[in-house]
Amino acid sequence: MPDLTSKDAGSETLPFFDTTVRVRYGETDQMGVVYYGNYYAWFEVGRVELCRQLGFEYKRMEIEDDSYIVVAESSCRYLRPAKFDDLLRVRTRVSELQRRVIGFRYEIIRDETNELIATGETRHVICDRQGRPKSLPEKYRKFFESNPEQRAAFPASIHARMK
Amino acid sequence: MPDLTSKDAGSETLPFFDTTVRVRYGETDQMGVVYYGNYYAWFEVGRVELCRQLGFEYKRMEIEDDSYIVVAESSCRYLRPAKFDDLLRVRTRVSELQRRVIGFRYEIIRDETNELIATGETRHVICDRQGRPKSLPEKYRKFFESNPEQRAAFPASIHARMK
Amino acid sequence: MPDLTSKDAGSETLPFFDTTVRVRYGETDQMGVVYYGNYYAWFEVGRVELCRQLGFEYKRMEIEDDSYIVVAESSCRYLRPAKFDDLLRVRTRVSELQRRVIGFRYEIIRDETNELIATGETRHVICDRQGRPKSLPEKYRKFFESNPEQRAAFPASIHARMK
Amino acid sequence: MPDLTSKDAGSETLPFFDTTVRVRYGETDQMGVVYYGNYYAWFEVGRVELCRQLGFEYKRMEIEDDSYIVVAESSCRYLRPAKFDDLLRVRTRVSELQRRVIGFRYEIIRDETNELIATGETRHVICDRQGRPKSLPEKYRKFFESNPEQRAAFPASIHARMK
Repeated sequence: MPDLTSKDAGSETLPFFDTTVRVRYGETDQMGVVYYGNYYAWFEVGRVELCRQLGFEYKRMEIEDDSYIVVAESSCRYLRPAKFDDLLRVRTRVSELQRRVIGFRYEIIRDETNELIATGETRHVICDRQGRPKSLPEKYRKFFESNPEQRAAFPASIHARMK
Repeated sequence: MPDLTSKDAGSETLPFFDTTVRVRYGETDQMGVVYYGNYYAWFEVGRVELCRQLGFEYKRMEIEDDSYIVVAESSCRYLRPAKFDDLLRVRTRVSELQRRVIGFRYEIIRDETNELIATGETRHVICDRQGRPKSLPEKYRKFFESNPEQRAAFPASIHARMK
Repeated sequence: MPDLTSKDAGSETLPFFDTTVRVRYGETDQMGVVYYGNYYAWFEVGRVELCRQLGFEYKRMEIEDDSYIVVAESSCRYLRPAKFDDLLRVRTRVSELQRRVIGFRYEIIRDETNELIATGETRHVICDRQGRPKSLPEKYRKFFESNPEQRAAFPASIHARMK
Repeated sequence: MPDLTSKDAGSETLPFFDTTVRVRYGETDQMGVVYYGNYYAWFEVGRVELCRQLGFEYKRMEIEDDSYIVVAESSCRYLRPAKFDDLLRVRTRVSELQRRVIGFRYEIIRDETNELIATGETRHVICDRQGRPKSLPEKYRKFFESNPEQRAAFPASIHARMK
């Protein structure tokens, strides 16, 4: 469900799309909290569900249109520990959209307490199966721009810097 | 926001400590390359081996000195795909050392071709078992400052920003 | 060595408890299907959700009653490949219940096609935090025996086969 | 390095091939020991290194001969906990070799104490890229039968049971 309350660093108000994950036992480590590398799997869940909520399945991009969203950069800030069995809200939004590049921002929130657990960003290059950069097919671009708030957020080109 | 303008500690040459990992089948994904989240496990291998090469075992910090290196930030740039069975050199160095904060930088290099596969950074807060920040015990500080190049690199305090 | 002598509980019909998982990208490998070791994480999700559906949270067993369900054996049979983005039904039931031992059986079903993807079993010893075997606290035993079908299924002792 | 001391349940003496893995932090869980599903990644390391020691790279089977070793069954018995930073010896041997089926057995040993940590088995069907069963190409069969001890161990066909 899109949500407009969050603000970007600039003046744009980009919608977040939400999904939830439940922390698995195997995602914790001996510190008793979630291992830092596992947050990136949740970001991926966020991306996939964002696509579904925008109206298409990410897997179709790969199968039908030979378009892979290849990760070029990723980062995460860990604000509070996530623990086993926590129900987490993964909030994802498109933060950058160029011809061959797409960026996402994430917020991980502990559902029970509404605490912000982590924030993150990923930046991707659209590639074909062989890993050659290509333009994002028009139909997917339309999906990413399909809701009014989002269209407003990408006037011409966005120079949101990932880092 | 991650920041690309920040500079490493000027002209210092900080030593890298090397170890190797062999890419496991389960670390790949259906794109035929290593899943982006799995690089962070290699960074962790790099940190642990850096400690061993400096003269102590990281696990001792936790067991004997109730000092945990808790991740506060992590990031990775993916330059070339890592593939199944690749032998990778994981190069790790201390990039920041403060009373309660330690930072590391990483390079992942494909051993066979000497290509740089990825770079990354992590930033950590020293905490006790309950997650409360504490000072890095003096003996470990000495280890981190124990080799000549490194000593030069940490004259008094380093304000190298991670991002 | 797995033990072939034990017998399954013949004609009993033990109830399955269902939950769902969506296959994550990082759970696939370069064969284009889910990596074989990742099914065990889903079995764990099944166990945790079975507990919740029986009326308690598994994490309480650890925190409040110092009782850990430590895995002693696990196995899985892979019948059909699970693929990225598949919605899977994880069906879990108690297959064995002794003073210090508990066993579970699992079925993984592709929700869309109703195909059986995999079956599995795990067998556990109840231990305290230090790893010493102990009896399953009575209140949890009651939960496991709390529903009618299940009570019938555990008349005195069960010699359910793990494999 | 082949090792002939271990015995199978039957009278055959099959060689084990050894490699080592160091337990990673992220492989532990909040119980303070290695998560049960992660042993299967080590078994895979064992298989890959067994192939290398027999004289070929497993990846070549996939790339050059369209032959995938698809897992059909897996199991593990956990005898003692593996802990962070443990150096483990992964011992792997072929336990079954048929036209389209290959089986492996594993032992995980804590190197420092020589304790047996776990044993396991996997059973595989040779398939092409599309997942259709096919015969193991002759050259790989020769590899698996290439060392004298092993040849003796596979007189005609082996009916070593996996479980």
